[in-house]
Amino acid sequence: MVSLTAGQKATLSPEAIKFLNNVPNFPFSNFLSPFLASSGRIKGLRENMAAKTSPVEEALIQKHNLKITEATIANMPVIIIEPPAIKLGNERKILLNFFGGGFVMGSARERAALLMAAEMGIRVYSVAYSKSPEVRYPVARDEGLAVYRELLRTFDPSGIFGMASSSGAQILLSMLLAARQENLPMPARLGAGDTTVCNDGRDIMPAALVSAMVTQNYKPVGIDATDALYSPIYAEHESDFPPSVISVGTRNVCLSHGVRMYWKLREAGVKAELLVSEGMWHGFNWDETLPKAVRVRAAVRDFLQMNF
Amino acid sequence: MVSLTAGQKATLSPEAIKFLNNVPNFPFSNFLSPFLASSGRIKGLRENMAAKTSPVEEALIQKHNLKITEATIANMPVIIIEPPAIKLGNERKILLNFFGGGFVMGSARERAALLMAAEMGIRVYSVAYSKSPEVRYPVARDEGLAVYRELLRTFDPSGIFGMASSSGAQILLSMLLAARQENLPMPARLGAGDTTVCNDGRDIMPAALVSAMVTQNYKPVGIDATDALYSPIYAEHESDFPPSVISVGTRNVCLSHGVRMYWKLREAGVKAELLVSEGMWHGFNWDETLPKAVRVRAAVRDFLQMNF
Repeated sequence: MVSLTAGQKATLSPEAIKFLNNVPNFPFSNFLSPFLASSGRIKGLRENMAAKTSPVEEALIQKHNLKITEATIANMPVIIIEPPAIKLGNERKILLNFFGGGFVMGSARERAALLMAAEMGIRVYSVAYSKSPEVRYPVARDEGLAVYRELLRTFDPSGIFGMASSSGAQILLSMLLAARQENLPMPARLGAGDTTVCNDGRDIMPAALVSAMVTQNYKPVGIDATDALYSPIYAEHESDFPPSVISVGTRNVCLSHGVRMYWKLREAGVKAELLVSEGMWHGFNWDETLPKAVRVRAAVRDFLQMNF
Repeated sequence: MVSLTAGQKATLSPEAIKFLNNVPNFPFSNFLSPFLASSGRIKGLRENMAAKTSPVEEALIQKHNLKITEATIANMPVIIIEPPAIKLGNERKILLNFFGGGFVMGSARERAALLMAAEMGIRVYSVAYSKSPEVRYPVARDEGLAVYRELLRTFDPSGIFGMASSSGAQILLSMLLAARQENLPMPARLGAGDTTVCNDGRDIMPAALVSAMVTQNYKPVGIDATDALYSPIYAEHESDFPPSVISVGTRNVCLSHGVRMYWKLREAGVKAELLVSEGMWHGFNWDETLPKAVRVRAAVRDFLQMNF
């Protein structure tokens, strides 16, 4: 599935080569994806993912001495991740996180949220939104909106930073578009690792699998795929949309979506930055020690903390 | 050669689809490239390119009423391109251009130079450097350096903006690294459309052809391909290197080089911007009316004129 020629290896770190060499081959992905991502198989996918990620998450929590609190905000479970030392200036700021996992799996304790809390010295509020296929769009979005509305009672919008990985970015963007329709204030900044809905095929993840997962489990019957709230790539933004940083890899099935979102925001007059990492795949920024993941997380922090 | 699925077409303009549909198929490119790019065939390549580009260049000169002067600076032929109206504030500024063409072909009157003169309202000094295989690296670089040294007698470095397309970007970057070794001042800004030396294969241009062209005609015998002056991607930059904007397309064989150059500059503390255009190929920014070419040229102008 993942081709890795000598020339390609020349620009990758040993850590990245090791990671890519361990990606299992996925034959007949176009043919098998609709079956592998069907609703009946989601339970198995979740268990597989949790079995792989939970030990890594636990180790990160221990290593960085993170305090995990299970809170309830607007009747929704929200995981609050707190580093041992809040960085000076971040006492009244939070990162509001929407986890990734193709809408069907994943955890509010995902690595991206843990790493940002530890590395940025900030509290992360990670929404444990409802997954598909049990619910479809726009349930998770509206759950996130309820949490955001409630957080605005406690925090100044200038202290709220949106953050999301993958499918979580769709939920975050859609939530903010809905919030704007209610005239709620916008958060200070957005940071997103890969926007959702993908269209290529050099990644560690087959585009057909992503597409099948979303269509069969998350997409409601009868919705127009170009509905701007469902697919925020089609939204027209206002210039006061929050400054946004988007991280993608050249090997990412979502590269084109990151690129298109960047220009959409830029043309609306929104301060936007697109960070493209050489040879990197969907979700590479989840890795704690991979050099390009460390680098891009630092660049995201720079953006989130910059004065414009 | 160029795949264009329905999904890919959905994010392209009609102009871009038409362009890509007209790209001729190039079978057996890995096998045939070493022959097609051999020194004996360069004359034919040049004539083909000139036959296609000269009428477009002439039409642009007429349409935008550009004045073309053939000057001699430091014993080198330099084409000065002057728009009918210099934009206010640009009277004492120039764009110093290095044309693209794989080191073996191309013209100092290339479209990128004409369009920037017309659209930015600025004089372009375009160096007619010597091509390969008649000369190899570092002849063109040293010719450019002689011109730059001479221009510094007339213009303040803060009024000199470097600009280059494709292989011209290698010459420009190498020239500036050599200029720094002589303690010459750096120009105000750099804008480059695609950095050179390529490593992929979804573009309108096969990577094997580019590679064969450079190796057989431009690369001197015995040079280390990672020599920092020969391959500026390997250079360590200082933080006072000029702020640089790099334009690439997602379909560009040079995407990875643009990405790597961006991070190199950024990590050295240089203000850098990477502009990635969805579905675009190597040199797309040469097109006068293609929507994404118009857009990226405007973004490059914004960068060149921005106060940092």
